[in-house]
Amino acid sequence: MTADTIIAADIRINARWLIPVEPLGVVLENQAVLILGNRLEAIVPQAEADTHFRARETIDLPHHVIVPGLINMHGHAAMSLFRGMADDLPLMTWLNNHIWPAEGAFVSERFIADGTQLAMAEMLRTGTTCFSDMYFFPEVAAQMARDTGMRAQVCFPLMEMPTPWGSGPDEYLAKGRDLIDQWRDDPYIRIAIGPHAPYTVNDSTFRRAVAIQHETGAALQVHLHETASEVSEAESQSGQRPIARMENLGVLGRNTQCVHMTALNDQDLAMVRGSGAHVVHCPESNLKLASGFCPVQKLRDAGTNVTIGTDGAASNNDLDLFGEMSTAAMLAKAVAGDAAALSAHDALAMATINGARALGRENELGSLVAGKQADLVAVDLSDPFLQPVYDPASHLVYSNHGRQVSHSWIAGVPQVQEGRLTRIDVPDLMLRVREWHDRIVAAKMN
Amino acid sequence: MTADTIIAADIRINARWLIPVEPLGVVLENQAVLILGNRLEAIVPQAEADTHFRARETIDLPHHVIVPGLINMHGHAAMSLFRGMADDLPLMTWLNNHIWPAEGAFVSERFIADGTQLAMAEMLRTGTTCFSDMYFFPEVAAQMARDTGMRAQVCFPLMEMPTPWGSGPDEYLAKGRDLIDQWRDDPYIRIAIGPHAPYTVNDSTFRRAVAIQHETGAALQVHLHETASEVSEAESQSGQRPIARMENLGVLGRNTQCVHMTALNDQDLAMVRGSGAHVVHCPESNLKLASGFCPVQKLRDAGTNVTIGTDGAASNNDLDLFGEMSTAAMLAKAVAGDAAALSAHDALAMATINGARALGRENELGSLVAGKQADLVAVDLSDPFLQPVYDPASHLVYSNHGRQVSHSWIAGVPQVQEGRLTRIDVPDLMLRVREWHDRIVAAKMN
Repeated sequence: MTADTIIAADIRINARWLIPVEPLGVVLENQAVLILGNRLEAIVPQAEADTHFRARETIDLPHHVIVPGLINMHGHAAMSLFRGMADDLPLMTWLNNHIWPAEGAFVSERFIADGTQLAMAEMLRTGTTCFSDMYFFPEVAAQMARDTGMRAQVCFPLMEMPTPWGSGPDEYLAKGRDLIDQWRDDPYIRIAIGPHAPYTVNDSTFRRAVAIQHETGAALQVHLHETASEVSEAESQSGQRPIARMENLGVLGRNTQCVHMTALNDQDLAMVRGSGAHVVHCPESNLKLASGFCPVQKLRDAGTNVTIGTDGAASNNDLDLFGEMSTAAMLAKAVAGDAAALSAHDALAMATINGARALGRENELGSLVAGKQADLVAVDLSDPFLQPVYDPASHLVYSNHGRQVSHSWIAGVPQVQEGRLTRIDVPDLMLRVREWHDRIVAAKMN
Repeated sequence: MTADTIIAADIRINARWLIPVEPLGVVLENQAVLILGNRLEAIVPQAEADTHFRARETIDLPHHVIVPGLINMHGHAAMSLFRGMADDLPLMTWLNNHIWPAEGAFVSERFIADGTQLAMAEMLRTGTTCFSDMYFFPEVAAQMARDTGMRAQVCFPLMEMPTPWGSGPDEYLAKGRDLIDQWRDDPYIRIAIGPHAPYTVNDSTFRRAVAIQHETGAALQVHLHETASEVSEAESQSGQRPIARMENLGVLGRNTQCVHMTALNDQDLAMVRGSGAHVVHCPESNLKLASGFCPVQKLRDAGTNVTIGTDGAASNNDLDLFGEMSTAAMLAKAVAGDAAALSAHDALAMATINGARALGRENELGSLVAGKQADLVAVDLSDPFLQPVYDPASHLVYSNHGRQVSHSWIAGVPQVQEGRLTRIDVPDLMLRVREWHDRIVAAKMN
């Protein structure tokens, strides 16, 4: 560009540090981020921005590090209303005796609307700009996310059992198919197919899901190898490991996301790698439910794309993806027996560009590169207990909490400003959450 | 007491919830805590407090849970000045190439004073009221803690190598012995003996440490079984596992605290149990340095007292004991393969009464019982992202960060009020931290 070219922008953000994620491992200093409409127009040194750009609004973030908006690849958003209701229990006891009965009694469109909003508030406040959801009434969750301006992959639920959302696979697939069409080409919302797990979905239902996947291009997300007992029971009942069964049914592929993935043997690792399927690692849920250990570094070494999710707040018990990154980075080292496994920069990539790849949106999301969508987050590192700062990437992953997020934008629209949510009425939300709490507690007393 | 008895108190705190820790597993509602001088005078329902007590000052905490002040049983406080300086490295590389050279270049009385104050600020702000320290110039750390009014066990360092604090074991033991005498019977400070590890301390030095322990009653804290390679190298060099060597040297006993304790076999577990020694579990440090897994539930099942520590901020990288409890509670489940292992209440006991037991101060500290010292912490659960609240204990351990701490008192003296530190000048501290940062960065550049 010539010296006299002046480029217009809507927003200029001056940041002390910036981690673009692409290229990996880079920390830039004193950069200006220029946003035009919903896109990143440029990321340049502040001196260059002074010369070549003129912005309508300038925001100075002199103690902050800017990173791409985080992508939470697995959760059950509305379950935030069950946060801390039942802890310290094995997975099947927790599901059979607590979660499934409570869902039967309370899940409704209103419940999903309020619970999803509670989850989005926490996710936005702690740096997430895009999330994957898998829960009942996905049409309500999708609309809530769209109205807030938050990006979401909404997986419609699919299992053999009747649920508050429908009578069984026929109804789930018909409703889900309609949702895929309804939200086609939306910039915020993608509908995906969400078969619950190998042990709750029959072969024929999986085949119908795969047919819809091929027909529509929708992604598929499935809980897979969550526990060692899931694997051993499947082997004793059918002679097949769940991953092999998924492979045989055509479920694995570049447009499929496998959640949890513990108890993996070498054949499993090779099969996943060969299929191009993505892995969603949920370290805190796996620890808390004693589900097992996902071999993150082995998967990465094999060339599989590993992303990260919080799982629902009922099993975690928060939706802070910075905390989840910290747990992932620490746990991967211990599981691999190698303190160099999953560095701070690797963990940040898991929560950004790797998620974008799993969604098939790596050309639009997941890194701070000119031309991509303006989804970005600023973290304030001026807190006394983040001092001194030698390496902002280390602090983001190992010393930080999501509460240090000060600003975020999605498609150039401010979502968090000076730590406050701009698009969710938190006091009103709290009144509704309080009502749900009181109803759920009253029901438990009876 | 009769209806007309009115008892005087200095402070009355009205709390929505209170977890006394003794008895274990209890959550009380709408209690009044009455503090007289440095002690808990009474903990009674608020209605009873109205009738029987009159306090000079009343503090209403209507959205808060009160717990005993947390006890951080292992750390190297002044290393906070090295926070995030070197990550994603194996233990010995991290020590040999980064930490030990930096310590050689920078550790001085000034460094210890400023670094210890930085660590105390973070610990106080996140709910810790008592900490164990093991670092150079323990006389400086002890004085800093005493001046701030924070309780500390200060372990003087002991190893064969010369360090900034002295030329070798003779000098360390002489200086340490003097410190023990100097601080005898202080209500805040206890001096303990801190032999670094089996691989840095000779048999004769351990024997001299044990002799001082017997003579003075001082506690002893040692890094033990930090990694599997520590154990295997000791076995191949001497035919003895480190725990067996410690037992033979008389190091293990009711007044000894063993830090880390990974790679334990059944014989190790029995030996520790038989000795009555205490274990200090540092889950985040063990994960991040890929040191190994401490079998917390097995130790507990065997009857060993298991406490918790953050380790230094250079290997963790924060001093938030609420976060450490969360990691401990999740990790213990995964390691035991049992989601019922180490419940939220158990984790809270690890960080309070179990720590007090390891210090031999369970009659004064570690639970909220009338007559004990008034060391207590209030956590504000009104944050939107802690809603709804079904079980405050679950939230404290699984959803909370130390930043939610709103108030704390040590010996009845306020240390945190409305989230602000009362006894540390944070802006002035930040200037000094900034100076250390600049000096350390400048030295790395050369």
